[in-house]
Amino acid sequence: MTQAAEMLRTYPADLGNVNREALARCIEACFECAQTCTACADACLSEKSVAELVKCVRTNLDCADICATTGRVLSRHTGYDANLTRAILEGCAAACKTCGDECQGHASMHEHCRVCAEACRRCEQACRELINTLS
Amino acid sequence: MTQAAEMLRTYPADLGNVNREALARCIEACFECAQTCTACADACLSEKSVAELVKCVRTNLDCADICATTGRVLSRHTGYDANLTRAILEGCAAACKTCGDECQGHASMHEHCRVCAEACRRCEQACRELINTLS
Amino acid sequence: MTQAAEMLRTYPADLGNVNREALARCIEACFECAQTCTACADACLSEKSVAELVKCVRTNLDCADICATTGRVLSRHTGYDANLTRAILEGCAAACKTCGDECQGHASMHEHCRVCAEACRRCEQACRELINTLS
Amino acid sequence: MTQAAEMLRTYPADLGNVNREALARCIEACFECAQTCTACADACLSEKSVAELVKCVRTNLDCADICATTGRVLSRHTGYDANLTRAILEGCAAACKTCGDECQGHASMHEHCRVCAEACRRCEQACRELINTLS
Repeated sequence: MTQAAEMLRTYPADLGNVNREALARCIEACFECAQTCTACADACLSEKSVAELVKCVRTNLDCADICATTGRVLSRHTGYDANLTRAILEGCAAACKTCGDECQGHASMHEHCRVCAEACRRCEQACRELINTLS
Repeated sequence: MTQAAEMLRTYPADLGNVNREALARCIEACFECAQTCTACADACLSEKSVAELVKCVRTNLDCADICATTGRVLSRHTGYDANLTRAILEGCAAACKTCGDECQGHASMHEHCRVCAEACRRCEQACRELINTLS
Repeated sequence: MTQAAEMLRTYPADLGNVNREALARCIEACFECAQTCTACADACLSEKSVAELVKCVRTNLDCADICATTGRVLSRHTGYDANLTRAILEGCAAACKTCGDECQGHASMHEHCRVCAEACRRCEQACRELINTLS
Repeated sequence: MTQAAEMLRTYPADLGNVNREALARCIEACFECAQTCTACADACLSEKSVAELVKCVRTNLDCADICATTGRVLSRHTGYDANLTRAILEGCAAACKTCGDECQGHASMHEHCRVCAEACRRCEQACRELINTLS
C-alpha cells in the first residue's frame, strides 16, 4: 500500500462514496508530476538550446504549481465539496495536457522532456479517471 | 505603482493586448487572499469553537493554495496560453466564492472570518474582471 | 528506478560530486512527507478531539510547506549553491523533527499521526544523510 | 492598516510578546518578494540573453518558494515554536541575500532584476529585523 493510500485508510471520518483507488492514484500522480515538471524546467535551463525551450520552462512551472495544489486539495476530505474538486481536477488535467504536449515536442531531443511528458500523461489520465468517478 | 504593476512594466517582451490594470489587480488580490486565508485557517484553530469551524479551516486551506498558484501563473507571461489562464481563473473564482460564503457565515461571530470574507470577495471579483478582458 | 532518480539521470549537465542516491531519496522523502502532513492535518480536523489537536494541525501545515519547498529546491541543479542547500535542509530537518515529535505524541490514539510520524522521521533522516554528503 | 496587520489584529488568542509591526512587515515582504521573484524568473526567460541568465532564473525560483513558505509559516501563530520560526527566517534571509546579489549583478542591464534586487533586500532586512525581536 502506498503512503497516500495509507493516509486514506487512516482517515478517521467517512470518506463518502469516493473511489479510493482512483483518488490515491491521482494524489500520487499529482505529487510525482509536480516533482518531475520542477526538475524538467531546471533541466531545460541547463540545455545549450535554452533559448528554444523557454515556453517549455514556463509550461513546466505552471504545471508543477497546479499539480502541487491539486495534490493538496485531493489530500483533504473534511468538508468535501464536489464542485470545487471537479473544477480543480479539470484545471489540472488541462495543465498536464498542455505540458505533456509541449514536452512531447522535444522528447526526441531531450530525454528529460520525454520522461516528463509521460508523467504529465499519467497525471492527466489520473485526473480524468477521478473526474469520471465523482457523483 | 504597486510592485506587481512595476514587474509588468519591466517585462522585456510584448505582453500582448492584456489589460494591465486588471492583471496587476488580480495578481495582488491572489497573493493577498492567499495570505489572508492562511491566517484565517490558523485563527479558526485558536477559537474555542474550533470544532464548529473545521469546514472553514479546510476551505481556507484550499483557497490559500489555489490563490497562491493562480498568482504565480498570472505572474508569468512567457509562452502565454489563454485557455490555461482562463481555466485557472475560473477555478480560483470558484474557490474564492466557496471560501467567501463559508467565512461570511461566521463573520458576525469571528472578525477574522469577516476580514477574510472580504478578501475572498475582492479576489473573486478581480478574477472575474480579468476573465472578461481575455480575448 | 524511481521518477526522481530518472530525472537526475536525464539532467543534461554535470551534477558535480553529489551523492545521487542520497539526493534522490531526500527528494522523494520531501514530497512524500509534504503529502502525508497535508493529509494528517486534515485527518486531525475530522477527529472529535480536534480541540486537543490544534498544535498538531499547525505543525503539520508548517512541515508540509517546508518539505514541499525543500523538495523543489533539491529538484533544481542549475547554478547550485551548497550554502543555500544546507540552510534549507537544516530547516527541513528541524520541521520534520518538530512534527514527528508532535505526531508521535498522538500515535497511540490516532493511526494517521503514527503513519505521519514515521514519514517525518524518514524525511528528517534523509535530510541529515544528504547534509552529511555535501562538501 | 495593511491586510496582514488586520489579520494579526483579529487573531483571537494571545500572540505572546511578538513585535507586531516587525511581524506584519515581514509577512508582507515575504509575499511581495515571492511574487517579484516569480515574475523576475519569467522576465529573464523572455530576454534574448536568457542563456546568460539561467543562474538568475534558478535563484529566483528558489527564493520565490522559500519566501512563500516563510510568509505562510509567519501567518500562523497557534502552537508557536520560536526555534522553527528562527530557522525558517534564517533560511529566508539567506535565500534573499543570494537572490538579491545575483539580481543586483544584472540590475544595470535588466530593469526587472533591479526591481527584484530591491524586493530581495527589503525581505532580507525584514527577516533580520524580525529575528532580532525573537526572544
